[in-house]
Amino acid sequence: MSAARDEHEEAAADIAAVEQANTDFYEAMERGDLAALSGLWLPGEDLTVSSVHPGWPVLRGRGEVLRSYALIMANTEYIQFFLTDVGVSMTGDTALVTCTENILSGGPAEDGNALGPLVGQLVVATNVFRRTPEGWKLWSHHGSPVLAETGEEEDEEPSP
Amino acid sequence: MSAARDEHEEAAADIAAVEQANTDFYEAMERGDLAALSGLWLPGEDLTVSSVHPGWPVLRGRGEVLRSYALIMANTEYIQFFLTDVGVSMTGDTALVTCTENILSGGPAEDGNALGPLVGQLVVATNVFRRTPEGWKLWSHHGSPVLAETGEEEDEEPSP
Repeated sequence: MSAARDEHEEAAADIAAVEQANTDFYEAMERGDLAALSGLWLPGEDLTVSSVHPGWPVLRGRGEVLRSYALIMANTEYIQFFLTDVGVSMTGDTALVTCTENILSGGPAEDGNALGPLVGQLVVATNVFRRTPEGWKLWSHHGSPVLAETGEEEDEEPSP
Repeated sequence: MSAARDEHEEAAADIAAVEQANTDFYEAMERGDLAALSGLWLPGEDLTVSSVHPGWPVLRGRGEVLRSYALIMANTEYIQFFLTDVGVSMTGDTALVTCTENILSGGPAEDGNALGPLVGQLVVATNVFRRTPEGWKLWSHHGSPVLAETGEEEDEEPSP
């Protein structure tokens, strides 16, 4: 019983650590902190990281992936992520997080305004993390726009 | 040297097996073979599977995921996937496949035609597989529409 309890406690701690790494990822984006963001992705080139931004093609490798975030940060004056429906599925040293990103963002100012127009966006993400000696690191991010607003129902039938 | 060679051969065989599982997934979709498709997803409920179809919210669990494929198959008269730019990144018992799905599909017939109008679609996917005693099985599929056609160039700057 005690071993089973230990195992449960360990699993709960792992899930909490993965959720924290997932939150850290979005907070680094909000702060426009490219250094922090770089540190959250798997280091080295042993495992090829990949990222898909909503509507973008696949980007592969730390260089290409991190350049894309630098580009997005340079073109984003303000961005806030409200995460909902966060789910963690994990086994061994890999964790898969799915979540809904409720995004509020603004571009650079126009015509002397302090801030560009704010835009709301609904995106779903699948984020894959690997356990490393330095904590859970991102292996893959895939975000995509939700085109059909379907509400809370589980059995809705959005068109494919 | 022999051990290193064995390791390389093993890795090459693993990558080939993962690519085959990825191909099998799309071929089952093309044939509208729900039984084959079901067998390609992780069995049981130990690990929660998830799927995001282009423009859809996240679906979780075998029941919800497989129902969505049944629904798509019921509404698809014809579908063909031309996979390009397939990349495999793997470690231990997890493999991550990224690829471009060049899709040609047709809905049910209208007005006495044999086939509905054919539609081309460009989708990118991140597919996560786990090694099991019965081969590599899908843990997660995330497909999303490529909204900006960017061609072959690596340094293009699509808007976020």
